[in-house]
Amino acid sequence: MQKIFASLITIGDELLIGQTIDTNSAWMAQELNDAGIWVQRRVAVGDDRAAILRALAEEGAASHIVLITGGLGPTADDITKPVLCEYFGAKLVLNEAALENVKHIFSRHGVAMPERNTEQAMVPDTAAIIQNGRGTAPGMWFEKNGTIYVSMPGVPHEMKGMMTGHVVPQLRQRFTTPALLHHTLITSGQGESFVADRLKDFEAGLPAHIRLAYLPSYGLLKLRLTTFAADQAAAEADMNAAFTQLKTILADISVAGRDEPMGVIVGDLLKARGLTLGTAESCTGGKIASQVTAVAGSSAYFKGSVVSYANETKMNLLGVQAATLEQYGAVSEETVREMAEGALKVLHTDCVIAVSGIMGPDGGSPEKPVGTVWIAAGGKNSIRTTRYHFRYDRERNTDMTCVAALNELRKWLEY
Amino acid sequence: MQKIFASLITIGDELLIGQTIDTNSAWMAQELNDAGIWVQRRVAVGDDRAAILRALAEEGAASHIVLITGGLGPTADDITKPVLCEYFGAKLVLNEAALENVKHIFSRHGVAMPERNTEQAMVPDTAAIIQNGRGTAPGMWFEKNGTIYVSMPGVPHEMKGMMTGHVVPQLRQRFTTPALLHHTLITSGQGESFVADRLKDFEAGLPAHIRLAYLPSYGLLKLRLTTFAADQAAAEADMNAAFTQLKTILADISVAGRDEPMGVIVGDLLKARGLTLGTAESCTGGKIASQVTAVAGSSAYFKGSVVSYANETKMNLLGVQAATLEQYGAVSEETVREMAEGALKVLHTDCVIAVSGIMGPDGGSPEKPVGTVWIAAGGKNSIRTTRYHFRYDRERNTDMTCVAALNELRKWLEY
Repeated sequence: MQKIFASLITIGDELLIGQTIDTNSAWMAQELNDAGIWVQRRVAVGDDRAAILRALAEEGAASHIVLITGGLGPTADDITKPVLCEYFGAKLVLNEAALENVKHIFSRHGVAMPERNTEQAMVPDTAAIIQNGRGTAPGMWFEKNGTIYVSMPGVPHEMKGMMTGHVVPQLRQRFTTPALLHHTLITSGQGESFVADRLKDFEAGLPAHIRLAYLPSYGLLKLRLTTFAADQAAAEADMNAAFTQLKTILADISVAGRDEPMGVIVGDLLKARGLTLGTAESCTGGKIASQVTAVAGSSAYFKGSVVSYANETKMNLLGVQAATLEQYGAVSEETVREMAEGALKVLHTDCVIAVSGIMGPDGGSPEKPVGTVWIAAGGKNSIRTTRYHFRYDRERNTDMTCVAALNELRKWLEY
Repeated sequence: MQKIFASLITIGDELLIGQTIDTNSAWMAQELNDAGIWVQRRVAVGDDRAAILRALAEEGAASHIVLITGGLGPTADDITKPVLCEYFGAKLVLNEAALENVKHIFSRHGVAMPERNTEQAMVPDTAAIIQNGRGTAPGMWFEKNGTIYVSMPGVPHEMKGMMTGHVVPQLRQRFTTPALLHHTLITSGQGESFVADRLKDFEAGLPAHIRLAYLPSYGLLKLRLTTFAADQAAAEADMNAAFTQLKTILADISVAGRDEPMGVIVGDLLKARGLTLGTAESCTGGKIASQVTAVAGSSAYFKGSVVSYANETKMNLLGVQAATLEQYGAVSEETVREMAEGALKVLHTDCVIAVSGIMGPDGGSPEKPVGTVWIAAGGKNSIRTTRYHFRYDRERNTDMTCVAALNELRKWLEY
């Protein structure tokens, strides 16, 4: 069966000067993969006529489907629509439904529609229009030389609405795609090279249509199996067999058999066991709690956190002893243990995570260099403490600490 | 003066299936912009020989500089190095310094180097080698037909070390670049179309070499002026004049005259005034505290947060009255005010932010639909409360709430 290829084109100077991180492309790629469509290239270009025309021609020649985002706003720097008209030999005509939509959006916010927004309802006459339920710029569906081009706004929730409501269902109808499956095993505690050595025979024995990839990620290592197959059932059977084998070989270092954030993995464990969680955070400043509560339904098991950034807060809210801070310092096994015990008491939870560390760039010393972190995880009758040393910048040290802390609680829950 | 163009090529299937969000490209683009180099295209391709060769040829033909990341790991899915050898007609030779570095990294972690890592010290004989101070894969600098190609690892902190330590300084020496300046004004409270109407004359009067762009971002609107000019001093003078004019026109909706996260903007205000901050967070789950503490040095003004996700925690730690929760509900002006007052008391701070809302997808009601948020910001003698209604998904509602809450505190501090 023929593979169906897609290219993603993202338009906007903000992507080229580093003002914006492109999160749309990853989301779009996931949706397309679920529909059996392989994204072969992602291209970002500026708000520049020649660059956009070149990208349309190159990606259109290489892919069955070209999805375009960005440059559809009401201001002068948004030039995607006229360039699309040029490329597809179209002229702009007023779309009444789009105009109604724009007017409706402004009236919902209780303001009159500025004249310039009328232009957002002007659409190329050769395009099928995708109404925008979440914003003022309509989407546009073109076809040329057997390739489908869809232009959508760059605002994430507007693009997502169009993709799930219209574009992906239409593409599924249009193409008969092979099954495209990914299975990911998350591991911790062993480096890429060591794991690869353990998987030498496994990798050599994989069927040709299954591919193994290694993806280090914040102190974890993700192992991804990918397959393309004409027959969904056969693909799943092959994949399940290979994935089961992989999990068996790496059982000792396995974290989870799916690619979910640690907040989801730990949350599911807590939910399954009917346990509640609280956190006491110093150096992570609330980021662990934020990752736990990013999960819908987390209020079923998460009660709260004491972000005790100042020593004073550690003493006042968590009951950490002044003598402990004095003798061992804020970044110490003793302090992090008292933080955990205090959080269990004041938050009335079954489980707890506590962290204290030095994220940098300042605050390090020869005995406790930047990146030193103490993590406590456990429950009323057993709290385990672990020392980590991360060697990165402030942001990455913080993210590594969050992953490590959630993983310590997972280990405590599982063993 | 000639503009110097760069292309960024990112290699890895994880980028095409949506498993990884590309944060490297934005960072690299910022560094290049600071050196006066304009990134004209960013391309992501998979671990696929033909796709990599095509990208090298296309980007090499279009740009002076091609920076490549990814695919340099020790496992079989990492194919960038052999493909580079093919493209540049090179063969692999052992680099002693790179081998020493790999051995050193393993010995620092107290483990013997696996045999496969020797391969990471094998480098193309036509490349200048960039030693990796933070990992095992060396960088490679090639030149072909007048274009510079640099291949670096995809691991962010390894790439960053090579860029700042070697690549950017070398590029600065090599090219005489025009000054490339960006100035961003952040505004809040008025939509893109309305602001564009207010800036009609200003935009028409801008010199040809200064460009204005509109960038909506989480309830804020960023206005960016960009200029290229041969003469740095002249460029700065022109920019400063235009930027001052822009700030004057939009003084009533101005948030900050630089593109920094709200955590930095609010942190600088607190520092300048010698005030301390604490937060009481329900629906944001610690994310506001996390954004405040993402700033190095925030311990000078941030004392902590009570993440009171459960009502029980609101009562026990913040002293919210049971009657208030009963009568008005957790998402109400009355509750968020009591949360703020409680946080001021228990955290002993000068200022406070408190939030309570419904982030979705569940928990909404006709009177309080998903996206309803109450925000309190202020200090001991004056707390201001504001109701917001966001209409997005859980993640975006949370991020919008963080920005809005920090902006409410900024307004309270500034007026």
